[in-house]
Amino acid sequence: MSLLVVGSVAIDSVKTPFGERKEVLGGSATFFSISASAFTKVMLVGVVGKDFPKKYIRTLQNKGVDLKGLEVGQGKTFRWKGKYEYDLNTAHTIYTKLNVFQNFSPRIPAEYKKAEYLFLANIDPRLQLLVLKNMKRPRLVACDTMNFWITSSPQALKKVLKEVDIFILNDSEIRLFAQESNLITAARYVFTLGPKIVIIKRGDSGALLLTKNGGCFSAPAYLMDSVKDPTGAGDSFAGGFMGYVSSRNDLSESGFRKAVIYGTIMASFCVQDFGPNRLLSLKSKDIAERLANYKKHVQF
Amino acid sequence: MSLLVVGSVAIDSVKTPFGERKEVLGGSATFFSISASAFTKVMLVGVVGKDFPKKYIRTLQNKGVDLKGLEVGQGKTFRWKGKYEYDLNTAHTIYTKLNVFQNFSPRIPAEYKKAEYLFLANIDPRLQLLVLKNMKRPRLVACDTMNFWITSSPQALKKVLKEVDIFILNDSEIRLFAQESNLITAARYVFTLGPKIVIIKRGDSGALLLTKNGGCFSAPAYLMDSVKDPTGAGDSFAGGFMGYVSSRNDLSESGFRKAVIYGTIMASFCVQDFGPNRLLSLKSKDIAERLANYKKHVQF
Repeated sequence: MSLLVVGSVAIDSVKTPFGERKEVLGGSATFFSISASAFTKVMLVGVVGKDFPKKYIRTLQNKGVDLKGLEVGQGKTFRWKGKYEYDLNTAHTIYTKLNVFQNFSPRIPAEYKKAEYLFLANIDPRLQLLVLKNMKRPRLVACDTMNFWITSSPQALKKVLKEVDIFILNDSEIRLFAQESNLITAARYVFTLGPKIVIIKRGDSGALLLTKNGGCFSAPAYLMDSVKDPTGAGDSFAGGFMGYVSSRNDLSESGFRKAVIYGTIMASFCVQDFGPNRLLSLKSKDIAERLANYKKHVQF
Repeated sequence: MSLLVVGSVAIDSVKTPFGERKEVLGGSATFFSISASAFTKVMLVGVVGKDFPKKYIRTLQNKGVDLKGLEVGQGKTFRWKGKYEYDLNTAHTIYTKLNVFQNFSPRIPAEYKKAEYLFLANIDPRLQLLVLKNMKRPRLVACDTMNFWITSSPQALKKVLKEVDIFILNDSEIRLFAQESNLITAARYVFTLGPKIVIIKRGDSGALLLTKNGGCFSAPAYLMDSVKDPTGAGDSFAGGFMGYVSSRNDLSESGFRKAVIYGTIMASFCVQDFGPNRLLSLKSKDIAERLANYKKHVQF
Protein backbone atom coordinates (compact mmCIF):
# COMPACT_ATOMS: atom_id res chain seq x y z
CA MET A 1 0.00 0.00 0.00
CA SER A 2 1.09 3.61 -0.53
CA LEU A 3 3.42 5.12 2.08
CA LEU A 4 4.17 8.81 2.41
CA VAL A 5 6.83 10.43 4.59
CA VAL A 6 7.10 14.12 5.36
CA GLY A 7 10.33 15.23 6.95
CA SER A 8 13.80 16.60 6.48
CA VAL A 9 16.32 15.91 3.76
CA ALA A 10 19.68 17.13 4.93
CA ILE A 11 23.40 17.17 4.50
CA ASP A 12 25.12 15.86 7.61
CA SER A 13 28.63 16.04 8.94
CA VAL A 14 29.34 13.65 11.74
CA LYS A 15 32.19 12.56 13.96
CA THR A 16 32.15 9.39 16.05
CA PRO A 17 34.95 7.55 17.87
CA PHE A 18 35.24 5.48 14.66
CA GLY A 19 35.73 8.22 12.13
CA GLU A 20 34.42 11.37 10.58
CA ARG A 21 32.35 12.09 7.48
CA LYS A 22 31.57 15.45 5.92
CA GLU A 23 28.56 16.46 3.82
CA VAL A 24 26.89 13.07 3.63
CA LEU A 25 23.24 12.43 2.86
CA GLY A 26 21.07 12.80 5.96
CA GLY A 27 17.69 13.87 7.28
CA SER A 28 14.76 12.05 8.83
CA ALA A 29 12.79 11.57 5.61
CA THR A 30 15.95 10.30 3.90
CA PHE A 31 16.72 7.56 6.41
CA PHE A 32 13.05 6.70 6.70
CA SER A 33 12.49 6.34 2.98
CA ILE A 34 15.70 4.43 2.25
CA SER A 35 14.85 2.01 5.06
CA ALA A 36 11.18 1.64 4.10
CA SER A 37 12.12 1.14 0.45
CA ALA A 38 13.29 -2.35 1.39
CA PHE A 39 9.60 -3.21 1.86
CA THR A 40 7.51 -0.88 -0.26
CA LYS A 41 7.48 2.15 -2.53
CA VAL A 42 7.81 5.44 -0.62
CA MET A 43 6.67 8.93 -1.54
CA LEU A 44 8.67 11.74 0.02
CA VAL A 45 7.68 15.30 0.83
CA GLY A 46 10.51 17.59 1.85
CA VAL A 47 12.73 20.41 0.70
CA VAL A 48 16.35 20.76 -0.37
CA GLY A 49 18.38 23.73 -1.53
CA LYS A 50 19.81 24.42 -4.91
CA ASP A 51 23.14 23.06 -3.68
CA PHE A 52 21.74 19.58 -3.03
CA PRO A 53 24.01 17.15 -4.91
CA LYS A 54 22.42 15.43 -7.91
CA LYS A 55 24.08 12.19 -6.83
CA TYR A 56 21.96 12.15 -3.69
CA ILE A 57 18.82 12.58 -5.81
CA ARG A 58 19.93 9.52 -7.78
CA THR A 59 20.68 7.65 -4.55
CA LEU A 60 17.06 8.08 -3.47
CA GLN A 61 15.66 7.38 -6.92
CA ASN A 62 17.69 4.17 -7.13
CA LYS A 63 15.83 3.03 -4.03
CA GLY A 64 12.56 3.69 -5.84
CA VAL A 65 11.71 6.70 -3.69
CA ASP A 66 9.15 8.94 -5.40
CA LEU A 67 10.53 12.49 -5.26
CA LYS A 68 7.67 14.43 -6.83
CA GLY A 69 7.12 15.88 -3.36
CA LEU A 70 10.74 17.00 -2.95
CA GLU A 71 10.77 20.74 -3.44
CA VAL A 72 13.93 22.59 -4.45
CA GLY A 73 13.89 25.85 -2.52
CA GLN A 74 15.88 29.06 -2.93
CA GLY A 75 18.95 28.79 -0.73
CA LYS A 76 20.99 26.04 0.80
CA THR A 77 20.03 22.59 2.02
CA PHE A 78 19.41 21.96 5.72
CA ARG A 79 22.70 21.02 7.39
CA TRP A 80 23.41 19.26 10.65
CA LYS A 81 26.77 18.64 12.25
CA GLY A 82 27.12 16.45 15.29
CA LYS A 83 29.40 14.19 17.19
CA TYR A 84 29.12 11.13 19.35
CA GLU A 85 31.43 10.35 22.23
CA TYR A 86 32.28 7.01 23.80
CA ASP A 87 28.57 6.67 24.64
CA LEU A 88 27.11 6.31 21.16
CA ASN A 89 23.57 6.70 22.47
CA THR A 90 23.73 10.49 22.68
CA ALA A 91 24.27 12.87 19.76
CA HIS A 92 25.91 16.19 20.55
CA THR A 93 24.86 18.81 18.02
CA ILE A 94 27.67 21.09 16.84
CA TYR A 95 25.40 23.12 14.62
CA THR A 96 22.01 23.04 12.93
CA LYS A 97 21.62 25.28 9.88
CA LEU A 98 17.98 25.16 8.86
CA ASN A 99 18.55 27.05 5.58
CA VAL A 100 15.65 26.24 3.19
CA PHE A 101 14.04 24.17 5.93
CA GLN A 102 13.42 27.35 7.92
CA ASN A 103 10.45 28.34 5.77
CA PHE A 104 9.45 24.86 4.69
CA SER A 105 5.75 24.43 4.19
CA PRO A 106 5.00 20.94 2.96
CA ARG A 107 3.10 20.81 -0.33
CA ILE A 108 1.44 17.49 -0.96
CA PRO A 109 1.24 16.54 -4.66
CA ALA A 110 -2.32 15.62 -5.65
CA GLU A 111 -1.49 11.96 -6.17
CA TYR A 112 0.01 11.73 -2.66
CA LYS A 113 -3.15 12.96 -0.95
CA LYS A 114 -4.73 9.56 -0.84
CA ALA A 115 -1.66 7.81 0.62
CA GLU A 116 -2.86 5.10 2.96
CA TYR A 117 0.13 5.17 5.29
CA LEU A 118 1.66 8.39 6.53
CA PHE A 119 4.75 9.01 8.62
CA LEU A 120 5.17 12.52 9.97
CA ALA A 121 8.87 12.62 10.77
CA ASN A 122 10.31 15.04 13.27
CA ILE A 123 9.29 18.51 12.04
CA ASP A 124 7.37 21.45 13.55
CA PRO A 125 4.05 20.03 14.80
CA ARG A 126 2.26 22.92 13.03
CA LEU A 127 3.58 21.53 9.75
CA GLN A 128 2.56 18.03 10.77
CA LEU A 129 -0.96 19.40 11.30
CA LEU A 130 -0.90 21.15 7.94
CA VAL A 131 -0.04 17.87 6.22
CA LEU A 132 -2.92 16.10 7.93
CA LYS A 133 -5.30 18.92 6.94
CA ASN A 134 -4.29 18.63 3.31
CA MET A 135 -4.83 14.90 2.99
CA LYS A 136 -7.61 12.40 2.97
CA ARG A 137 -7.36 10.68 6.38
CA PRO A 138 -4.82 7.86 5.79
CA ARG A 139 -5.49 4.37 7.03
CA LEU A 140 -2.64 4.77 9.52
CA VAL A 141 -0.76 7.84 10.71
CA ALA A 142 2.42 7.66 12.76
CA CYS A 143 4.47 10.60 13.97
CA ASP A 144 7.78 11.34 15.60
CA THR A 145 8.91 14.47 17.42
CA MET A 146 11.87 15.76 19.44
CA ASN A 147 12.66 17.51 22.70
CA PHE A 148 12.68 20.90 20.99
CA TRP A 149 9.01 20.66 19.94
CA ILE A 150 7.95 19.04 23.21
CA THR A 151 9.34 22.00 25.09
CA SER A 152 8.52 24.83 22.69
CA SER A 153 5.21 23.74 21.12
CA PRO A 154 3.43 21.30 23.44
CA GLN A 155 -0.05 22.54 22.45
CA ALA A 156 0.54 22.11 18.72
CA LEU A 157 2.03 18.69 19.39
CA LYS A 158 -1.07 17.68 21.36
CA LYS A 159 -3.25 18.77 18.44
CA VAL A 160 -1.17 16.51 16.17
CA LEU A 161 -1.49 13.58 18.55
CA LYS A 162 -5.29 13.88 18.43
CA GLU A 163 -5.06 12.88 14.76
CA VAL A 164 -2.36 10.26 15.07
CA ASP A 165 -2.56 6.48 15.53
CA ILE A 166 1.03 5.75 16.50
CA PHE A 167 3.45 7.97 18.37
CA ILE A 168 7.05 6.84 17.80
CA LEU A 169 9.67 8.52 19.98
CA ASN A 170 12.71 8.05 22.22
CA ASP A 171 12.56 7.11 25.88
CA SER A 172 13.98 10.47 26.96
CA GLU A 173 11.41 12.25 24.77
CA ILE A 174 8.37 10.46 26.16
CA ARG A 175 9.65 10.99 29.71
CA LEU A 176 9.97 14.71 29.01
CA PHE A 177 6.60 14.90 27.26
CA ALA A 178 4.69 13.00 29.95
CA GLN A 179 6.77 14.33 32.85
CA GLU A 180 6.95 10.75 34.02
CA SER A 181 9.91 8.45 34.41
CA ASN A 182 8.07 5.13 34.11
CA LEU A 183 7.64 4.33 30.43
CA ILE A 184 4.36 2.44 30.76
CA THR A 185 2.81 5.22 32.81
CA ALA A 186 4.15 7.77 30.33
CA ALA A 187 2.56 5.83 27.45
CA ARG A 188 -0.78 5.77 29.30
CA TYR A 189 -0.67 9.55 29.35
CA VAL A 190 -0.11 9.60 25.59
CA PHE A 191 -3.13 7.30 25.13
CA THR A 192 -5.36 9.95 26.73
CA LEU A 193 -4.35 12.35 23.94
CA GLY A 194 -5.29 10.27 20.93
CA PRO A 195 -2.74 7.63 19.85
CA LYS A 196 -3.72 4.01 20.31
CA ILE A 197 -0.12 2.85 20.07
CA VAL A 198 3.15 4.15 21.45
CA ILE A 199 6.51 2.91 20.25
CA ILE A 200 9.42 3.86 22.45
CA LYS A 201 12.89 3.72 20.90
CA ARG A 202 15.62 3.02 23.43
CA GLY A 203 18.80 2.99 21.35
CA ASP A 204 20.90 -0.09 22.04
CA SER A 205 18.34 -1.17 24.65
CA GLY A 206 15.77 -1.94 21.96
CA ALA A 207 12.19 -0.82 21.52
CA LEU A 208 8.84 -1.08 23.28
CA LEU A 209 5.43 -1.29 21.65
CA LEU A 210 2.60 -0.37 23.99
CA THR A 211 -1.07 -0.35 23.04
CA LYS A 212 -3.99 1.52 24.56
CA ASN A 213 -5.74 -1.75 25.37
CA GLY A 214 -2.84 -2.98 27.48
CA GLY A 215 -0.64 -4.74 24.94
CA CYS A 216 3.06 -4.78 25.87
CA PHE A 217 5.85 -5.86 23.56
CA SER A 218 9.53 -5.58 24.31
CA ALA A 219 12.13 -6.09 21.57
CA PRO A 220 15.83 -6.02 22.42
CA ALA A 221 18.17 -4.31 19.98
CA TYR A 222 20.19 -6.50 17.63
CA LEU A 223 23.49 -7.27 19.35
CA MET A 224 26.48 -5.94 17.42
CA ASP A 225 30.18 -5.79 18.05
CA SER A 226 30.65 -2.73 15.91
CA VAL A 227 28.59 0.44 15.70
CA LYS A 228 30.10 3.22 13.61
CA ASP A 229 27.47 5.95 13.47
CA PRO A 230 24.06 5.99 15.17
CA THR A 231 22.79 8.91 13.04
CA GLY A 232 19.47 8.00 11.44
CA ALA A 233 18.91 4.85 13.49
CA GLY A 234 15.57 6.06 14.83
CA ASP A 235 14.27 7.03 11.38
CA SER A 236 15.56 3.77 9.90
CA PHE A 237 13.64 2.00 12.65
CA ALA A 238 10.48 3.95 11.77
CA GLY A 239 11.08 3.24 8.07
CA GLY A 240 11.41 -0.48 8.65
CA PHE A 241 8.34 -0.43 10.88
CA MET A 242 6.08 1.56 8.54
CA GLY A 243 7.50 -0.07 5.42
CA TYR A 244 6.67 -3.51 6.75
CA VAL A 245 3.22 -2.51 8.04
CA SER A 246 2.20 -0.89 4.78
CA SER A 247 3.57 -3.78 2.69
CA ARG A 248 1.46 -6.21 4.72
CA ASN A 249 -1.48 -3.89 5.29
CA ASP A 250 -1.94 -5.66 8.61
CA LEU A 251 -3.01 -3.48 11.54
CA SER A 252 -3.18 -6.24 14.14
CA GLU A 253 -0.96 -6.13 17.24
CA SER A 254 0.78 -9.22 15.96
CA GLY A 255 1.52 -7.42 12.69
CA PHE A 256 2.84 -4.38 14.59
CA ARG A 257 5.11 -6.63 16.66
CA LYS A 258 6.66 -8.11 13.55
CA ALA A 259 7.04 -4.59 12.18
CA VAL A 260 8.93 -3.54 15.33
CA ILE A 261 11.35 -6.40 14.68
CA TYR A 262 11.89 -5.24 11.08
CA GLY A 263 12.41 -1.72 12.41
CA THR A 264 15.00 -3.09 14.82
CA ILE A 265 16.78 -4.96 12.02
CA MET A 266 16.86 -1.92 9.73
CA ALA A 267 18.21 0.30 12.54
CA SER A 268 20.96 -2.27 13.16
CA PHE A 269 22.07 -2.02 9.54
CA CYS A 270 21.94 1.77 9.66
CA VAL A 271 24.42 2.08 12.54
CA GLN A 272 26.96 -0.25 10.96
CA ASP A 273 28.32 2.43 8.69
CA PHE A 274 28.27 6.21 8.32
CA GLY A 275 25.12 7.90 7.04
CA PRO A 276 22.79 5.61 5.11
CA ASN A 277 25.72 3.74 3.48
CA ARG A 278 24.93 0.29 4.79
CA LEU A 279 21.22 0.66 4.09
CA LEU A 280 22.01 1.59 0.50
CA SER A 281 23.93 -1.61 -0.21
CA LEU A 282 21.38 -3.84 1.54
CA LYS A 283 19.94 -6.89 -0.22
CA SER A 284 16.78 -8.68 0.88
CA LYS A 285 18.82 -11.76 1.76
CA ASP A 286 20.82 -9.60 4.24
CA ILE A 287 17.58 -8.70 6.00
CA ALA A 288 16.40 -12.31 6.06
CA GLU A 289 19.76 -13.48 7.42
CA ARG A 290 19.81 -10.88 10.15
CA LEU A 291 16.24 -11.67 11.11
CA ALA A 292 17.19 -15.34 11.47
CA ASN A 293 20.14 -14.35 13.69
CA TYR A 294 17.94 -12.05 15.73
CA LYS A 295 15.54 -14.88 16.38
CA LYS A 296 18.47 -16.96 17.66
CA HIS A 297 19.49 -14.09 19.96
CA VAL A 298 16.14 -13.91 21.70
CA GLN A 299 14.85 -17.46 21.86
CA PHE A 300 14.71 -19.37 25.14
CA MET B 1 22.08 -29.55 43.75
CA SER B 2 23.85 -27.67 46.54
CA LEU B 3 24.24 -23.90 46.11
CA LEU B 4 26.53 -21.73 48.22
CA VAL B 5 26.68 -17.94 48.29
CA VAL B 6 29.39 -15.89 49.92
CA GLY B 7 28.63 -12.20 50.31
CA SER B 8 27.29 -9.45 52.48
CA VAL B 9 24.40 -9.48 54.90
CA ALA B 10 23.51 -5.91 55.73
CA ILE B 11 21.07 -3.47 57.18
CA ASP B 12 19.97 -0.94 54.58
CA SER B 13 18.29 2.41 54.72
CA VAL B 14 16.95 3.62 51.43
CA LYS B 15 15.04 6.51 49.97
CA THR B 16 13.41 6.45 46.54
CA PRO B 17 10.87 8.80 44.91
CA PHE B 18 8.25 6.37 46.25
CA GLY B 19 9.14 6.32 49.92
CA GLU B 20 11.77 5.69 52.54
CA ARG B 21 12.67 2.70 54.69
CA LYS B 22 15.12 2.54 57.57
CA GLU B 23 17.12 -0.43 58.85
CA VAL B 24 15.68 -3.07 56.54
CA LEU B 25 17.28 -6.38 55.65
CA GLY B 26 19.82 -6.00 52.87
CA GLY B 27 23.13 -7.26 51.47
CA SER B 28 24.13 -9.16 48.36
CA ALA B 29 24.05 -12.63 49.94
CA THR B 30 20.65 -11.84 51.44
CA PHE B 31 18.94 -10.90 48.19
CA PHE B 32 20.72 -13.71 46.38
CA SER B 33 19.70 -16.39 48.84
CA ILE B 34 16.10 -15.25 49.25
CA SER B 35 15.72 -15.19 45.47
CA ALA B 36 17.49 -18.53 44.89
CA SER B 37 15.44 -20.14 47.66
CA ALA B 38 12.46 -20.12 45.27
CA PHE B 39 14.31 -22.84 43.32
CA THR B 40 16.66 -24.65 45.67
CA LYS B 41 18.17 -24.79 49.14
CA VAL B 42 20.90 -22.20 49.68
CA MET B 43 23.88 -22.17 52.04
CA LEU B 44 25.09 -18.75 53.07
CA VAL B 45 28.52 -17.61 54.21
CA GLY B 46 28.67 -14.10 55.60
CA VAL B 47 28.96 -12.07 58.76
CA VAL B 48 26.63 -9.95 60.87
CA GLY B 49 27.14 -8.02 64.09
CA LYS B 50 25.71 -8.66 67.49
CA ASP B 51 23.02 -6.08 66.75
CA PHE B 52 21.58 -8.07 63.82
CA PRO B 53 17.87 -8.47 64.53
CA LYS B 54 16.72 -11.99 65.36
CA LYS B 55 13.68 -11.44 63.16
CA TYR B 56 15.92 -11.16 60.11
CA ILE B 57 17.58 -14.49 61.02
CA ARG B 58 14.10 -16.01 61.10
CA THR B 59 13.25 -14.34 57.78
CA LEU B 60 16.14 -16.16 56.12
CA GLN B 61 15.49 -19.43 57.92
CA ASN B 62 11.86 -19.33 56.84
CA LYS B 63 13.13 -19.35 53.27
CA GLY B 64 15.13 -22.47 54.07
CA VAL B 65 18.46 -20.66 53.90
CA ASP B 66 21.17 -22.62 55.73
CA LEU B 67 22.90 -20.16 58.08
CA LYS B 68 25.62 -22.36 59.55
CA GLY B 69 28.04 -20.19 57.59
CA LEU B 70 26.68 -16.93 58.98
CA GLU B 71 29.20 -15.73 61.52
CA VAL B 72 28.23 -13.32 64.29
CA GLY B 73 31.16 -10.96 64.73
CA GLN B 74 32.09 -8.53 67.49
CA GLY B 75 30.63 -5.17 66.54
CA LYS B 76 27.85 -3.88 64.41
CA THR B 77 26.33 -5.21 61.21
CA PHE B 78 27.37 -3.75 57.84
CA ARG B 79 25.14 -0.80 57.02
CA TRP B 80 24.38 0.93 53.73
CA LYS B 81 22.30 4.01 53.17
CA GLY B 82 21.41 5.15 49.69
CA LYS B 83 18.91 7.02 47.63
CA TYR B 84 17.54 6.87 44.14
CA GLU B 85 16.38 9.89 42.19
CA TYR B 86 13.92 10.11 39.32
CA ASP B 87 16.27 7.78 37.37
CA LEU B 88 15.88 4.59 39.37
CA ASN B 89 18.77 2.95 37.53
CA THR B 90 21.45 4.69 39.61
CA ALA B 91 21.95 4.30 43.37
CA HIS B 92 23.55 7.23 45.19
CA THR B 93 25.34 6.02 48.31
CA ILE B 94 24.85 8.24 51.36
CA TYR B 95 27.09 6.11 53.55
CA THR B 96 28.67 2.67 53.76
CA LYS B 97 29.61 1.51 57.26
CA LEU B 98 31.50 -1.74 56.88
CA ASN B 99 31.54 -2.48 60.63
CA VAL B 100 32.06 -6.25 61.12
CA PHE B 101 32.40 -6.64 57.36
CA GLN B 102 35.67 -4.69 57.50
CA ASN B 103 37.62 -7.68 58.79
CA PHE B 104 35.42 -10.39 57.31
CA SER B 105 37.31 -13.50 56.35
CA PRO B 106 34.90 -16.11 55.04
CA ARG B 107 35.02 -19.44 56.89
CA ILE B 108 33.48 -22.27 54.96
CA PRO B 109 31.82 -24.91 57.18
CA ALA B 110 33.10 -28.41 56.34
CA GLU B 111 29.78 -29.53 54.88
CA TYR B 112 29.73 -26.51 52.52
CA LYS B 113 33.12 -27.33 50.99
CA LYS B 114 31.69 -29.71 48.46
CA ALA B 115 28.94 -27.37 47.27
CA GLU B 116 28.44 -27.91 43.56
CA TYR B 117 27.30 -24.40 42.73
CA LEU B 118 29.03 -21.33 44.10
CA PHE B 119 28.17 -17.68 43.79
CA LEU B 120 30.83 -15.22 44.90
CA ALA B 121 28.81 -12.07 45.46
CA ASN B 122 30.39 -8.64 45.37
CA ILE B 123 33.15 -8.74 48.01
CA ASP B 124 36.93 -8.11 47.97
CA PRO B 125 38.37 -10.33 45.22
CA ARG B 126 41.03 -11.51 47.70
CA LEU B 127 38.23 -12.99 49.78
CA GLN B 128 36.65 -14.49 46.69
CA LEU B 129 40.02 -16.20 46.01
CA LEU B 130 40.23 -17.40 49.60
CA VAL B 131 36.83 -19.05 49.29
CA LEU B 132 37.87 -20.82 46.11
CA LYS B 133 41.10 -22.01 47.76
CA ASN B 134 39.16 -23.48 50.67
CA MET B 135 36.73 -25.50 48.60
CA LYS B 136 36.67 -28.49 46.34
CA ARG B 137 36.30 -27.01 42.82
CA PRO B 138 32.51 -26.59 42.41
CA ARG B 139 30.79 -27.75 39.27
CA LEU B 140 30.01 -24.11 38.45
CA VAL B 141 31.40 -20.89 39.88
CA ALA B 142 29.89 -17.48 39.17
CA CYS B 143 31.07 -14.17 40.55
CA ASP B 144 30.01 -10.56 40.71
CA THR B 145 32.08 -7.48 41.48
CA MET B 146 31.74 -3.69 41.57
CA ASN B 147 33.47 -0.55 40.32
CA PHE B 148 35.39 -0.20 43.58
CA TRP B 149 37.22 -3.53 43.15
CA ILE B 150 37.69 -3.05 39.41
CA THR B 151 39.51 0.18 40.11
CA SER B 152 41.34 -0.69 43.31
CA SER B 153 42.17 -4.40 42.88
CA PRO B 154 42.24 -5.27 39.19
CA GLN B 155 45.01 -7.88 39.59
CA ALA B 156 43.22 -9.78 42.38
CA LEU B 157 40.03 -9.64 40.34
CA LYS B 158 41.83 -11.13 37.33
CA LYS B 159 43.11 -13.97 39.54
CA VAL B 160 39.53 -14.66 40.58
CA LEU B 161 38.33 -14.65 36.99
CA LYS B 162 40.89 -17.34 36.12
CA GLU B 163 38.94 -19.67 38.40
CA VAL B 164 35.44 -18.57 37.46
CA ASP B 165 33.00 -19.93 34.87
CA ILE B 166 30.51 -17.07 34.79
CA PHE B 167 31.13 -13.38 35.36
CA ILE B 168 27.89 -11.57 36.22
CA LEU B 169 28.11 -7.78 36.31
CA ASN B 170 26.52 -4.49 35.25
CA ASP B 171 27.03 -2.85 31.87
CA SER B 172 28.87 0.09 33.41
CA GLU B 173 31.11 -2.31 35.34
CA ILE B 174 32.15 -4.40 32.34
CA ARG B 175 32.77 -1.21 30.33
CA LEU B 176 35.04 0.05 33.10
CA PHE B 177 36.78 -3.29 33.53
CA ALA B 178 37.42 -3.85 29.83
CA GLN B 179 37.93 -0.16 29.01
CA GLU B 180 35.60 -0.76 26.10
CA SER B 181 32.18 0.68 25.37
CA ASN B 182 30.86 -2.10 23.12
CA LEU B 183 29.47 -4.85 25.34
CA ILE B 184 30.28 -7.75 23.01
CA THR B 185 33.86 -6.60 22.59
CA ALA B 186 34.11 -6.08 26.36
CA ALA B 187 32.85 -9.63 26.95
CA ARG B 188 35.47 -10.97 24.51
CA TYR B 189 38.13 -9.41 26.68
CA VAL B 190 36.69 -11.15 29.75
CA PHE B 191 36.79 -14.48 27.87
CA THR B 192 40.59 -14.13 27.52
CA LEU B 193 40.85 -14.08 31.32
CA GLY B 194 39.02 -17.30 32.16
CA PRO B 195 35.23 -17.12 32.20
CA LYS B 196 33.37 -18.97 29.48
CA ILE B 197 30.21 -16.97 30.06
CA VAL B 198 29.50 -13.32 30.73
CA ILE B 199 26.14 -12.08 31.93
CA ILE B 200 25.63 -8.35 31.66
CA LYS B 201 22.91 -6.80 33.81
CA ARG B 202 21.43 -3.65 32.29
CA GLY B 203 18.80 -2.59 34.81
CA ASP B 204 15.48 -1.88 33.13
CA SER B 205 17.08 -2.63 29.75
CA GLY B 206 17.34 -6.32 30.60
CA ALA B 207 20.27 -8.71 30.51
CA LEU B 208 22.70 -10.21 28.02
CA LEU B 209 24.20 -13.68 28.12
CA LEU B 210 27.35 -14.01 26.01
CA THR B 211 29.38 -17.18 25.66
CA LYS B 212 33.01 -17.67 24.71
CA ASN B 213 32.00 -19.74 21.71
CA GLY B 214 29.91 -16.94 20.25
CA GLY B 215 26.52 -17.51 21.83
CA CYS B 216 24.44 -14.32 22.20
CA PHE B 217 21.23 -14.05 24.16
CA SER B 218 19.33 -10.87 24.85
CA ALA B 219 16.52 -10.78 27.42
CA PRO B 220 14.51 -7.60 27.92
CA ALA B 221 13.53 -6.66 31.45
CA TYR B 222 9.98 -7.42 32.58
CA LEU B 223 7.87 -4.36 31.80
CA MET B 224 6.37 -2.82 34.93
CA ASP B 225 4.34 0.27 35.64
CA SER B 226 5.62 0.57 39.18
CA VAL B 227 9.12 0.21 40.56
CA LYS B 228 9.55 1.16 44.20
CA ASP B 229 13.12 0.27 45.10
CA PRO B 230 15.80 -1.20 42.82
CA THR B 231 18.06 -2.20 45.73
CA GLY B 232 19.03 -5.85 45.45
CA ALA B 233 17.71 -6.30 41.90
CA GLY B 234 21.10 -7.47 40.59
CA ASP B 235 21.58 -9.99 43.38
CA SER B 236 18.00 -11.20 43.01
CA PHE B 237 18.74 -11.68 39.32
CA ALA B 238 21.85 -13.71 40.17
CA GLY B 239 19.89 -15.68 42.77
CA GLY B 240 17.17 -16.56 40.28
CA PHE B 241 19.79 -17.47 37.69
CA MET B 242 21.95 -19.65 39.94
CA GLY B 243 18.95 -21.07 41.82
CA TYR B 244 17.39 -22.24 38.57
CA VAL B 245 20.67 -23.59 37.13
CA SER B 246 21.49 -25.56 40.25
CA SER B 247 17.94 -26.89 40.58
CA ARG B 248 18.12 -28.20 36.99
CA ASN B 249 21.81 -29.07 37.03
CA ASP B 250 21.80 -28.17 33.34
CA LEU B 251 24.91 -26.41 32.05
CA SER B 252 23.82 -26.11 28.43
CA GLU B 253 23.43 -22.71 26.78
CA SER B 254 19.72 -23.38 26.50
CA GLY B 255 19.60 -24.04 30.26
CA PHE B 256 21.51 -20.80 30.94
CA ARG B 257 19.09 -18.86 28.73
CA LYS B 258 16.11 -20.11 30.72
CA ALA B 259 18.00 -19.27 33.91
CA VAL B 260 18.50 -15.68 32.68
CA ILE B 261 14.74 -15.44 32.26
CA TYR B 262 14.17 -16.66 35.82
CA GLY B 263 16.77 -14.15 37.00
CA THR B 264 14.87 -11.44 35.14
CA ILE B 265 11.58 -12.50 36.72
CA MET B 266 13.03 -12.58 40.25
CA ALA B 267 14.61 -9.14 39.78
CA SER B 268 11.22 -7.80 38.65
CA PHE B 269 9.62 -8.98 41.88
CA CYS B 270 12.47 -7.54 43.94
CA VAL B 271 11.99 -3.98 42.66
CA GLN B 272 8.24 -3.97 43.28
CA ASP B 273 8.64 -3.25 46.97
CA PHE B 274 11.28 -2.03 49.41
CA GLY B 275 14.09 -4.37 50.43
CA PRO B 276 13.33 -8.05 49.86
CA ASN B 277 9.67 -7.61 50.89
CA ARG B 278 8.06 -8.76 47.68
CA LEU B 279 10.46 -11.69 47.30
CA LEU B 280 9.57 -12.83 50.80
CA SER B 281 5.85 -13.10 50.08
CA LEU B 282 6.36 -14.80 46.72
CA LYS B 283 4.54 -18.04 45.85
CA SER B 284 5.58 -20.36 43.06
CA LYS B 285 2.35 -19.58 41.21
CA ASP B 286 3.39 -15.89 41.17
CA ILE B 287 6.59 -16.85 39.38
CA ALA B 288 4.76 -19.07 36.91
CA GLU B 289 2.21 -16.33 36.21
CA ARG B 290 4.86 -13.70 35.63
CA LEU B 291 6.82 -16.02 33.39
CA ALA B 292 3.69 -16.56 31.30
CA ASN B 293 3.21 -12.78 31.05
CA TYR B 294 6.85 -12.29 30.17
CA LYS B 295 6.52 -14.73 27.31
CA LYS B 296 3.56 -12.71 26.03
CA HIS B 297 5.67 -9.54 26.22
CA VAL B 298 8.43 -10.88 24.01
CA GLN B 299 6.73 -13.08 21.44
CA PHE B 300 6.42 -12.07 17.81
